[in-house]
Amino acid sequence: MKQTKQFFDLAIALAAIGEDLHRRGWVPATSGNFSQRLDEHSAIVTASGRHKGRLAPTDFLAVDLNGQPLSDGKPSAETLLHTQLYARFADIGAVLHCHSPSVTVLSRQISGNTLRLEGYELLKAFNGIDTHDTFVDIPIFENTQDIAALADEVDTYFNSHPNTPAYLIRGHGVYCWGEDLDSCMRNLEALDFLLQCDLQERMLTRK
Amino acid sequence: MKQTKQFFDLAIALAAIGEDLHRRGWVPATSGNFSQRLDEHSAIVTASGRHKGRLAPTDFLAVDLNGQPLSDGKPSAETLLHTQLYARFADIGAVLHCHSPSVTVLSRQISGNTLRLEGYELLKAFNGIDTHDTFVDIPIFENTQDIAALADEVDTYFNSHPNTPAYLIRGHGVYCWGEDLDSCMRNLEALDFLLQCDLQERMLTRK
Amino acid sequence: MKQTKQFFDLAIALAAIGEDLHRRGWVPATSGNFSQRLDEHSAIVTASGRHKGRLAPTDFLAVDLNGQPLSDGKPSAETLLHTQLYARFADIGAVLHCHSPSVTVLSRQISGNTLRLEGYELLKAFNGIDTHDTFVDIPIFENTQDIAALADEVDTYFNSHPNTPAYLIRGHGVYCWGEDLDSCMRNLEALDFLLQCDLQERMLTRK
Amino acid sequence: MKQTKQFFDLAIALAAIGEDLHRRGWVPATSGNFSQRLDEHSAIVTASGRHKGRLAPTDFLAVDLNGQPLSDGKPSAETLLHTQLYARFADIGAVLHCHSPSVTVLSRQISGNTLRLEGYELLKAFNGIDTHDTFVDIPIFENTQDIAALADEVDTYFNSHPNTPAYLIRGHGVYCWGEDLDSCMRNLEALDFLLQCDLQERMLTRK
Repeated sequence: MKQTKQFFDLAIALAAIGEDLHRRGWVPATSGNFSQRLDEHSAIVTASGRHKGRLAPTDFLAVDLNGQPLSDGKPSAETLLHTQLYARFADIGAVLHCHSPSVTVLSRQISGNTLRLEGYELLKAFNGIDTHDTFVDIPIFENTQDIAALADEVDTYFNSHPNTPAYLIRGHGVYCWGEDLDSCMRNLEALDFLLQCDLQERMLTRK
Repeated sequence: MKQTKQFFDLAIALAAIGEDLHRRGWVPATSGNFSQRLDEHSAIVTASGRHKGRLAPTDFLAVDLNGQPLSDGKPSAETLLHTQLYARFADIGAVLHCHSPSVTVLSRQISGNTLRLEGYELLKAFNGIDTHDTFVDIPIFENTQDIAALADEVDTYFNSHPNTPAYLIRGHGVYCWGEDLDSCMRNLEALDFLLQCDLQERMLTRK
Repeated sequence: MKQTKQFFDLAIALAAIGEDLHRRGWVPATSGNFSQRLDEHSAIVTASGRHKGRLAPTDFLAVDLNGQPLSDGKPSAETLLHTQLYARFADIGAVLHCHSPSVTVLSRQISGNTLRLEGYELLKAFNGIDTHDTFVDIPIFENTQDIAALADEVDTYFNSHPNTPAYLIRGHGVYCWGEDLDSCMRNLEALDFLLQCDLQERMLTRK
Repeated sequence: MKQTKQFFDLAIALAAIGEDLHRRGWVPATSGNFSQRLDEHSAIVTASGRHKGRLAPTDFLAVDLNGQPLSDGKPSAETLLHTQLYARFADIGAVLHCHSPSVTVLSRQISGNTLRLEGYELLKAFNGIDTHDTFVDIPIFENTQDIAALADEVDTYFNSHPNTPAYLIRGHGVYCWGEDLDSCMRNLEALDFLLQCDLQERMLTRK
């Protein structure tokens, strides 16, 4: 597969996001991975093990929606968690996975499999929410090194919860998506802000 | 209405403030909105839904002091909360609304409708305060999607508390103002600093 | 008094420090003030009420060591707390006063008039300390708007504690000094780091 | 010893890391020291007492693996802790020592001599770890001003724990290493992230 101008444009936009996320401390130690949809059947995704704060177009490769490489390089081990989102939801254009301290700490502190965010004005940042007077449930999946099994588990969850804006993997990180990179980043920023608030509220109340 | 040099100058100054506030994490996920007075009868205000860290002059529009657009575009849903301040207080030149973690967390943790800040030297940043040996009460209003009703409630509050330097909306954010953009920003910076201190003191004492 | 090249050089160095301290959040809302010694009888000090993150040479003035202006402008209200240090200690070349959250919170939380820092390797940043196996006592003075009275109180304290590296004013801020601006900044950075550690330790242990 | 192009390249790379670490607040008040291997018998190391956020090539010197200077200048007092690592492990190319708040606070809070990090996905950043379902023990040595004695103690520890990725010195800081500067920095970033998470978890649970 030839690397087109589209490939480079998408890569450069993800590299800029990577620089921003690294400065925030959300992709420490080469963690995290990013992708954008190329077309109905493929996406670009970060190659395995790269520093996410200084990505170049050569740090990305094209994959099909089963996560198989269409260009040179070794895709991130978690590629399937990206491509399942593009395969299932036609309106998803970008997926970001990162590890912020809030995500890591909260996903370990909460013993159940759901984090409920309730009553915040900023919930309105998520699609389809037009009031603070509601709640959004963020699912927490157990961490595993068997990515195919986790992808299946996530897929089953979507059957009953198609409007989920993001999910956490316990002690690991967050997956977040959007119709394009700007809306994906808006979702991620809203989610992490709400998790930071929730974490501080727990420190105040030991709830 | 023609977009004058004044309009562009005010927009560019607000865009610079937006970049600063975004870097601080106080306007996550397109939240927040900013305005400055144009003249006795109008103000410029951010358009609805824009990223507050990278505003351009085209992301602003002129409104009258009832919040009705005087130039193209859809004003922020909370425009009325800005214009009521310009309409009521002739010496207000700038209004900033943002969502910092401290504002969000504290406004949810405090069950009453007032946050009292007492004994801090930095209280002197607020107009009319010349000693640390005093207190300032910041009102907390319940959040609502009915902005006109909230504007009325705020207006009634000002009847009995004309010297209030800012107010909080529960689980939502802060409104802050000043005679010009510099003094508005000084008030906002002082307020958020004091809220951060108060939050840390609560973590130490579980007060 | 003519504003010499020395005056401008000292002002420009302090302006650069101001930009750094503002970025750290230690001089919110025009708080803080800075000075450097000009000669045996005079110093330059920030003018009253300026934004400490964007100082220009015109935001400084020369004062004698009683705090009286030698050039145009209104010196900071706390000028006397700077000049008493230059008058008393011939080897002091720079004084920084700022308001960090750690300073503000800890000085309010501690009920006594001393903060003891003990057992930290970083104590060695202070002059005359060459082991971690010691302690440094930082005095806390009550806040007051009577700066002359506070200067007297500080002066009396120095009679019995000449090696103090810094002092706190309750709910207000810190005064820190050094033989030149670099060593003053090193002391300030060490102190705030140690206060941040102490604050976090108190959050862990509620000591 | 002539200062070669290699010397300058290694110094410039360490200076860039120093700027980054200073911005993070991990090398306050001239603390910390950095090194890279020159060859089988020597390394470059930061000179004593320099500001770690603005290092120039003249702020480094060459030392042999007993810590003795091979070029002009006074090496950091802790040079031996760097050179023992190069002497013992042929595949170590870079060593970073710094003082972050998390390192300082946690090493004082934990009464034992080990900090166990368990169940985090980010453990995989350390060499030889390929699952979250494990733990890594970070040793904590008592602080001392007798660097030769500490070097001996560390050396003895390595006899039984050759795969340790880093160690803490109580109330002092962390030593971290890697085959080259990038992998050393990846280890340090991973470690500090995990310590930040652990610290926040302790604040939530008072464990």
